[in-house]
Amino acid sequence: MRLNRYFLSHTKNIKDALISLSTVSSTIILGIDPGSLKTGYGLIESSGNRLRFLECGTIKTGGGPLPPRLKIIFNDIRKVVQHWSPDEMAIENVFLARNPDSALKLGQARGAAICAVMAEDIPVAEYTANQVKQAIVGKGHAAKTQVQHMVKVLLNLSETPQSDAADALAIALCHANTNKTMTELKSKASERYPAEVLGAIRGRRKKRFTL
Amino acid sequence: MRLNRYFLSHTKNIKDALISLSTVSSTIILGIDPGSLKTGYGLIESSGNRLRFLECGTIKTGGGPLPPRLKIIFNDIRKVVQHWSPDEMAIENVFLARNPDSALKLGQARGAAICAVMAEDIPVAEYTANQVKQAIVGKGHAAKTQVQHMVKVLLNLSETPQSDAADALAIALCHANTNKTMTELKSKASERYPAEVLGAIRGRRKKRFTL
Repeated sequence: MRLNRYFLSHTKNIKDALISLSTVSSTIILGIDPGSLKTGYGLIESSGNRLRFLECGTIKTGGGPLPPRLKIIFNDIRKVVQHWSPDEMAIENVFLARNPDSALKLGQARGAAICAVMAEDIPVAEYTANQVKQAIVGKGHAAKTQVQHMVKVLLNLSETPQSDAADALAIALCHANTNKTMTELKSKASERYPAEVLGAIRGRRKKRFTL
Repeated sequence: MRLNRYFLSHTKNIKDALISLSTVSSTIILGIDPGSLKTGYGLIESSGNRLRFLECGTIKTGGGPLPPRLKIIFNDIRKVVQHWSPDEMAIENVFLARNPDSALKLGQARGAAICAVMAEDIPVAEYTANQVKQAIVGKGHAAKTQVQHMVKVLLNLSETPQSDAADALAIALCHANTNKTMTELKSKASERYPAEVLGAIRGRRKKRFTL
C-alpha cells in the first residue's frame, strides 16, 4: 500500500507506475529443453537489464519403459520448481519432429515437464528453436556450439554448460529478452497512444505470449 | 496378522497364501485412452471372475495452446485418481502414429495422464490397440463399434458408452483379463514346477507386465 502511494505520487498515473514496477522487479525464469532420455533445465533471474545465472542441470532418465522415466522428469522438475519458485517457464515448441516414434516420446517428456510446472500454477511460454537462436545468436540457423558459447558469455559463466542444460538456459534467455522487449514496447506505446489503442495492442499480444 | 495366520494354517506355504489372497481380493483398475482434444477414462472393479463398472467419462480440453489443455487432463485425471484410489492403471501403447505432428500432441496428452497417475504411485501397464481388441472381441482387428458393444455386454451397462470412454473401459477390461490369466498361470505353475523355476518365470513376466 505504501509502495503504491509512493509510485502514484511520483508518476502520472497507475499505468506508468505498473510499468516502472515491472522494469525494476526481478523475474525468475525456468527454461526447459525436454527429451525422453535427457531433459535439460536452466534457471536465470532477470532484473531490468541484468541477467543472473541461478542453476542448470540435466535430468537423465535411462532406458526401459517410458512411464517411470516420465515420473523421474515430473518429480525432478517439480523439485526444481518448489526450490526456486520461478515466476515464468519457457519451453521449446517443436513443429517438425523427425518421425512419429520420436515425436511420441518427445511429446510425453514435454507433457511431463509442462505438467510439473503447471501443477504449481506457473505460466508457460513456448518458443520455436529458430526464435531461441535468433534471440541468443542473432541468426535463426545458428549452430548448437554458437548457442552454447553465447549462453556462457551472456550469463558470465566460468565454463560452458552441457548441451541440454545450455539449450534450456538459451530458452530462458530468449524468454527474458522477449519479456524485456515487450516491457519497453509497452512503455513506449503508453507515451504515444491513448489508453484504448494500448488496450487493443496488449490484448492481441497477451493471446500470443501468455496462456 | 490374523489373516496371515489363517492362510498359513490352511495352505502349504506363503506363496500359495498370496496367490489365494490375490484371487479373492478386488482390484480397482483405471483405463485411459489419451488424446489432446478428448481423453477417455473408465474405472472397473475386478474381483475374481466378477467385473463391476464404476465410472467412465470423457475429458474435453477444447482448442487453443496445448499447456493449459495438458493441465486440464492432469488435474481431471488426478481428481478421478484421488476419488477412486485405483490399484492399477492401464493405457494404450501407441507404436504407429499417423504423423509426427499428431504424435507429438498425443504424446503430450499421454504424458500428462501418466504423470497424474504416477504422482500417486500407482503402477502403469501398457497395451497395444491389437492386444485390447483381442482381449475384448477376440480379434486383433475388430471394429470400434464391436469393442463398444462388447464393453456394454461385459460390464452389463444399460447403454453404450461414448467412443473414448468405451475405449478406456476396454483397456481396463484387457488389463483385468491379463491379470486374471496371470494369476491362473501362477496358480497352475506353483502346482507343477519347483520354486526355482517359478521364480525365473515370474521374474521374466514382471519385466513385461509391470513397472
